[in-house]
Amino acid sequence: MATKPRNAFYAQSGGVTAVINTSAAGVIETARKYKKKIGKVYAGRNGIIGALTEDLIDTSKESAAGIKALHYTPAGAFGSCRYKLKGLDESRAQYERLMEVFRAHDIGYFFYNGGGDSADTCLKVSQLAEKMGYPLQAIHVPKTVDNDLPITDVCPGFGSAAKYVAVSTREASLDVASMAKTSTKVFVIEVMGRHAGWIAAAGGLASSKDLEIPIVILFPEVVFDQAKFLAMVDSKVKQFGYCSIVVSEGVKGADGKFLSDQGLRDAFGHAQLGGVAPMIASLVKEHLKYKYHWAVADYLQRAARHIASKTDAQQSYAIGKAAVELAVKGKHSVMPTIVRTASKPYKWKIGVAPLDQVANVEKKMPRDFITEDGFGITAKCRAYLEPLIQGEDYPPYKNGLPQYRLLKNIPVKKKLKTEFKV
Amino acid sequence: MATKPRNAFYAQSGGVTAVINTSAAGVIETARKYKKKIGKVYAGRNGIIGALTEDLIDTSKESAAGIKALHYTPAGAFGSCRYKLKGLDESRAQYERLMEVFRAHDIGYFFYNGGGDSADTCLKVSQLAEKMGYPLQAIHVPKTVDNDLPITDVCPGFGSAAKYVAVSTREASLDVASMAKTSTKVFVIEVMGRHAGWIAAAGGLASSKDLEIPIVILFPEVVFDQAKFLAMVDSKVKQFGYCSIVVSEGVKGADGKFLSDQGLRDAFGHAQLGGVAPMIASLVKEHLKYKYHWAVADYLQRAARHIASKTDAQQSYAIGKAAVELAVKGKHSVMPTIVRTASKPYKWKIGVAPLDQVANVEKKMPRDFITEDGFGITAKCRAYLEPLIQGEDYPPYKNGLPQYRLLKNIPVKKKLKTEFKV
Repeated sequence: MATKPRNAFYAQSGGVTAVINTSAAGVIETARKYKKKIGKVYAGRNGIIGALTEDLIDTSKESAAGIKALHYTPAGAFGSCRYKLKGLDESRAQYERLMEVFRAHDIGYFFYNGGGDSADTCLKVSQLAEKMGYPLQAIHVPKTVDNDLPITDVCPGFGSAAKYVAVSTREASLDVASMAKTSTKVFVIEVMGRHAGWIAAAGGLASSKDLEIPIVILFPEVVFDQAKFLAMVDSKVKQFGYCSIVVSEGVKGADGKFLSDQGLRDAFGHAQLGGVAPMIASLVKEHLKYKYHWAVADYLQRAARHIASKTDAQQSYAIGKAAVELAVKGKHSVMPTIVRTASKPYKWKIGVAPLDQVANVEKKMPRDFITEDGFGITAKCRAYLEPLIQGEDYPPYKNGLPQYRLLKNIPVKKKLKTEFKV
Repeated sequence: MATKPRNAFYAQSGGVTAVINTSAAGVIETARKYKKKIGKVYAGRNGIIGALTEDLIDTSKESAAGIKALHYTPAGAFGSCRYKLKGLDESRAQYERLMEVFRAHDIGYFFYNGGGDSADTCLKVSQLAEKMGYPLQAIHVPKTVDNDLPITDVCPGFGSAAKYVAVSTREASLDVASMAKTSTKVFVIEVMGRHAGWIAAAGGLASSKDLEIPIVILFPEVVFDQAKFLAMVDSKVKQFGYCSIVVSEGVKGADGKFLSDQGLRDAFGHAQLGGVAPMIASLVKEHLKYKYHWAVADYLQRAARHIASKTDAQQSYAIGKAAVELAVKGKHSVMPTIVRTASKPYKWKIGVAPLDQVANVEKKMPRDFITEDGFGITAKCRAYLEPLIQGEDYPPYKNGLPQYRLLKNIPVKKKLKTEFKV
């Protein structure tokens, strides 16, 4: 006997990426193919906050062309948020409210597109629904430029950030090389990765067999050793005439504190938030007397859809599509994953991981991905990273700019009388 | 009666760009077509220093494919330098040494690829040659991301930096917009332009009719007014929920000093070289309490060949080609220029300017390119800028990275016995 189709809820969570909307397209376009099972896809405006406040977006009002544009439009099309639901006891009111809203809108599918924290939330939502006897299939859709989720070979979003960092490091290094005789000899680029050095590692790809570039990488996984670092930079400059440094924002001193928290003050003595790049550049200047330049990529690296990895874009879409397919097959409390089936040439397929094995597990760089001296990537790391930045996936352009497109984001009529403050 | 072909000298000067090598390709490929007039093209290793030290590169040893790769390889293929020749009296030894080297290698053509200072040097070299009775055709090949040379409609290199800044500002703004509900509300990006705000102005292009983005621009041409600035940012955040700030490194306070020089000290009280972006971000945090992020594009913006403007690349090549054509026509002490012949659709042709009208003239943003309030670009400015970022000119890729190519840079055998210290 056919059951009535139920609606789906989709939300973006935490820091956005160049291709999180590509996963959204995968979810929405695939859901539109299963009309017998899935009614409408409602998106949370500003992520899970949209669910809590019953501020839902009716994606069925968007044209096929609008959804297609999600493929190549970076950042969060429906808005994301940093709003962490804690344990079931601490945040009980929030979880119960979610159920209330889901019930009111007949939500039978919960697709949560985020990183480690969201995986945990997704699992808790699933558990509570079951406990309350509310039929809900919660599926986590992985996404994080930090690449720190376990089980999956790679996290959607990472490959594009990695490509941006590798390309930018290569380009800036050529610039420095050509000026080094009389000007800048040391270039520092700060990249993201508060706890894991995956993005910093990607800077190492800038150097290849046919284009050697002297690069020193500072990983959060390796305690910063000033003397060793300065000696390494000095030897590179002496050998190559210049040196590029890729520093992770998460690099820490022996005291376990972030280097970026250890120092800058303005003229009035107020503490000045970070940027570890200027601090590293200052060390080089003070101790080695080399002229330096520094850059902080910040949001540019995770929003750079113009230089997205085609592999990453394809995987992001496939992950969104797989999430819906898992749901229609009756799965719940799971996360679709990328499984590497071959390295040369790179081949991958979609796998599936139980959420309780994903939540609260952080995947750092393995020690054998980092060279003995702590400042570079090994051949093993390179073999892992290289396939992830393969291929270009250029957006369409108009008037010289990528033609990113915003959606209409039409709200769903509210059904509840109660309001909920977040 | 046919005269014997004479050799050409080509050098890159000052800060490099994404397309300075494209001009080099224009010079070398065109020179190869005029074998009856031009013998070999010798490039200065590390710019003019290569001429002074008789460290010349024989570009005739490079394959056609190698020179073709210059089209899409950023930075200075032969090395550039910051080494300013002063007046004829002050730097007489340098100028005389140049003549000595040119005479030894039968250099009849001097192509100097640089900005305002180089135009001045080029003119002085031309004047001295004439005075000394040494036959030399000195032609300046314009290049500068700062876009501050007079007469020419635009400076090769600027369009690509402008495109990078416009694209990056658009992308990062979408990121901020999607997170603004609970996280970052103000994003600051610092761009180049020590004296002129052309690159900062390009940030204004990120917003267009079909994709409105709240942007506040801080120009070096407008004295920084803290109260007015904070009020403007606050009003944008209240209206749009977020705001992006594009700040030129050259923005100055009422005292005429760079803001970036006014403040940061490390924990030990040492002055810390700038970054005006963190300073602006701190102001926003302190006075408006908005959560912020900041980026410093630094070399990335002038090396980003991966997102070069096709218009800029075409013009850069045409300028190099024109320089050689002017030379074979017997011209000297001139600079080829870009002449805008129509705006919609944009049309341009090559013109020519006498060097004495170029040297030591700095083109700043006209006041009517900046909005009344001092924080934005006018329609007139947009009409000027938009054509310059048109078109994409992607480099070839290999293993996910642009396949930039280094030349062999084989030295020319020295003929002089004297050494010259620079």
